Amino acid sequence: MITNNIIGFQLSAKSSERLFSVNPMTLENLEETFIPATEAEVNLAVEKAFKAWRLYRNVSGEERAAFLNEIAKGIEALGDMLVQRMKLETGYPEARILVERNRTVAQLRMFAEEAVQEQWKEISFDAALPDRKPTPRPSLRKTMFPIGPVVVFGASNFPLAYSTAGGDVASALAVGCPVIVKAHDSHLGTNALVAEVIMQAAQKTGMPDGVFSSLNGDGLATGKLLVQHPRTAAVGFTGSQRGGRALFDLGQQREIPIPVFSEMGSVNPIFLLPEKIKEDTNALAAQLAGSMTLSGGQFCTQPGILVALNDDRTDALKLALCEKLNAADDALLLNQGISKSYRNGIAEIKNSLDVKLIFHRESGRDNAVSPALAVVQAQQFLANPKLHREIFGPFSLLVLCQSYKEMSQIAEALEGQLTAAVFMQEVERATALPLIEVLIEKAGRIIVNGVPTGVEVCDSMTHGGPYPATTDNRFTAVGTHATQRWLRPVTFQNFPDGLLINT
Amino acid sequence: MITNNIIGFQLSAKSSERLFSVNPMTLENLEETFIPATEAEVNLAVEKAFKAWRLYRNVSGEERAAFLNEIAKGIEALGDMLVQRMKLETGYPEARILVERNRTVAQLRMFAEEAVQEQWKEISFDAALPDRKPTPRPSLRKTMFPIGPVVVFGASNFPLAYSTAGGDVASALAVGCPVIVKAHDSHLGTNALVAEVIMQAAQKTGMPDGVFSSLNGDGLATGKLLVQHPRTAAVGFTGSQRGGRALFDLGQQREIPIPVFSEMGSVNPIFLLPEKIKEDTNALAAQLAGSMTLSGGQFCTQPGILVALNDDRTDALKLALCEKLNAADDALLLNQGISKSYRNGIAEIKNSLDVKLIFHRESGRDNAVSPALAVVQAQQFLANPKLHREIFGPFSLLVLCQSYKEMSQIAEALEGQLTAAVFMQEVERATALPLIEVLIEKAGRIIVNGVPTGVEVCDSMTHGGPYPATTDNRFTAVGTHATQRWLRPVTFQNFPDGLLINT
Repeated sequence: MITNNIIGFQLSAKSSERLFSVNPMTLENLEETFIPATEAEVNLAVEKAFKAWRLYRNVSGEERAAFLNEIAKGIEALGDMLVQRMKLETGYPEARILVERNRTVAQLRMFAEEAVQEQWKEISFDAALPDRKPTPRPSLRKTMFPIGPVVVFGASNFPLAYSTAGGDVASALAVGCPVIVKAHDSHLGTNALVAEVIMQAAQKTGMPDGVFSSLNGDGLATGKLLVQHPRTAAVGFTGSQRGGRALFDLGQQREIPIPVFSEMGSVNPIFLLPEKIKEDTNALAAQLAGSMTLSGGQFCTQPGILVALNDDRTDALKLALCEKLNAADDALLLNQGISKSYRNGIAEIKNSLDVKLIFHRESGRDNAVSPALAVVQAQQFLANPKLHREIFGPFSLLVLCQSYKEMSQIAEALEGQLTAAVFMQEVERATALPLIEVLIEKAGRIIVNGVPTGVEVCDSMTHGGPYPATTDNRFTAVGTHATQRWLRPVTFQNFPDGLLINT
Repeated sequence: MITNNIIGFQLSAKSSERLFSVNPMTLENLEETFIPATEAEVNLAVEKAFKAWRLYRNVSGEERAAFLNEIAKGIEALGDMLVQRMKLETGYPEARILVERNRTVAQLRMFAEEAVQEQWKEISFDAALPDRKPTPRPSLRKTMFPIGPVVVFGASNFPLAYSTAGGDVASALAVGCPVIVKAHDSHLGTNALVAEVIMQAAQKTGMPDGVFSSLNGDGLATGKLLVQHPRTAAVGFTGSQRGGRALFDLGQQREIPIPVFSEMGSVNPIFLLPEKIKEDTNALAAQLAGSMTLSGGQFCTQPGILVALNDDRTDALKLALCEKLNAADDALLLNQGISKSYRNGIAEIKNSLDVKLIFHRESGRDNAVSPALAVVQAQQFLANPKLHREIFGPFSLLVLCQSYKEMSQIAEALEGQLTAAVFMQEVERATALPLIEVLIEKAGRIIVNGVPTGVEVCDSMTHGGPYPATTDNRFTAVGTHATQRWLRPVTFQNFPDGLLINT
């Protein structure tokens, strides 16, 4: 099977080059071949998206909702074919894939509802005051307006929920922005199946040609063409800090800068106060180990740093954590890049004089890795900023503090995060509060007595946070407010009734 | 009189260098001397602002409102001293100064009300669902949170309303962000008077030391230190495209990029449809000439481009416009930089083969310039992007079109704008609508049958627009929503009652 690029309602395959997906379990190329987009194809996709924008933004909310609901239905109709393909490309267990598929179609339906309700328009109105002295006031009506063609770079770890028909795409389509998806190299086949569903849904529901395109190609080269195209209005990216920053820089260096929403690394620190550790050490260890190793630790909200006092209670927790990790399976990582980074990260920890690897075991297959836990003293952690960075996968670093003051110093020293959590007993409020005051400066979501994995899709979610968690901490990538990234305000002054119907 | 920098509650004068304001009427230095901030003083101001942020963000809305209201009262109490100083530094007539002062204190009081009402918090709440299957939902509460210390670069043309206690400053202070103002070189004395009022108001109402600082200094060198300081969280700027872009680039190139809201140039095109011109040519000419020359044409919403069909009606309008301009006084521009740019711009127009200067007269004093009107054919305009750029001052370029199609081509070719306007008769809806559809892509505010000058301060104002009008078209610099630039969302998950009171 050869799979083409999808440019609006056309399949397109101009390049003679070929791409392949890799099976993470066998490390062999999968059979299907994929054709990367040429520069001309990239340009065509963006030009089509621009033309589509002029029509699509005037399509009614009900019609856009029908389009999004049709995509959801189409993804469900792919049934086991999609599940099996995603399994081949990710190595995820079926249960994990089904959860992600459910979330993806639920998100599409939620944004369909948003398209109809139109609360994202945030309409405000100031009536004319013709008799006001010294100057009359004209009528002013303000509404949010779709920003234009949006380019989305999907995430390796969420082929459905953060990729081809994921939250970025659904939220942009809901508010009237056409989308061009750059398919992730790791799951070209999953992308192809979903992209075809979107194309067919667009045709079936009468959307304009160009409202959606899907392009294969090298992340950096194709990405650069997409971000630099003068008709591109905004960019969504989920992935590494290196990649996200590179795209952000390209976006800001343009003659006309554009917003680039890169969601990047995060170590999601968890501060463990002693009375809470004591309460039920074993259950806490199980909860933490579960969050560390869920989906092979390949969640952007995986807790990479634990912070606790250096005392007997923490010693007990350490032992219990090692037991839980010992009972956990090896994690099959998504691709060779990720498993190589993980192995290198663990090797560096092993060779470090300051850090002690207290749980790790040898693992067999190339992409299968052992969960790992390491321990470091607070002062060593503070002296070595490299330890503050993410090792993507099922690893956490436990930072041992001599005092609450050191705990606060750790909080102060951390980079920006998607989340930060505090485990505390009621009696520990006075200790927790100053810690939380610092964590608010560092993270988009602050959690009490809960692990960071499990990102609720709702109005009140903030999936975002200060750099390097994201390149723009004023927005969320998950939940209904994700639409705000693709909008800008426009005011209509002194407009006669009925001149503009759809704004 | 020697005026120092104000750093929190301290006056500070470490530098041996001296700065002066220039009287635009005489081109001579005014008597007072001003001391620029050293690098150490810049750092101190930002560090103090950071420390103040941790206290100020927890100050109640009522207390912040008392602070803002006290500033408004203090500005009024300066009375004629402030008016006379501003007159010396701007050459503005007293009536113009009083209007700006009224707007400034009204803005402060509006943002005081915002501080109390707290609608900018945009609080949303999703209650816990402990019995949900397969996983329970934790409670989630989302609120907007002040982003941190804000640096404001005031505007040459609005020493009060867009500078020391202007909209950027008042909106940031209202939501809990400390502010450091870089005083504009053109009105150091006006800045000093207002800055002292703010310092005293902060002391009187018990605000934390560092909530406000005012620094003198070279725009680029001092500006660079301020924007690059790691504790600076956001920047507001109003001025030239060169300056605004330079600060934007500095902000984006930081290790941790920050939002830089530069409001820059705009030609605020006005499209004049023939039936409307015919209706009352003389009144229309008076309205246009008034908007062109108001405050010496030194408004960011001054209409620099007029677009009309090349026909008898436009000929009549042209004549009427020249008559109105002939009756208008010369404009005294704010400083030598502005008058030099204006004179150069007019000289280039004079020397151009394509453009015909149809109104201009010789003017005497250095900073006093004649209003000017030039005419160009649409195809020549399209071929020469230089003509699309702003000549700051009382100048407009009339673009003559052979057809409505050419009019649309002009709209398509324009850069981003703060505003765009269409003058039309009811019978011209069908002609206006496609034009408006293009103008929405280009501007933050679209006006029917009105001039762009006169920016209403209210909920529904958008004072912003696509680049190069601003560096971030997703926000407004005027009106209640101006607060949104200084906020980011934070979600509190599973928080026990009463743990965080003020969020």
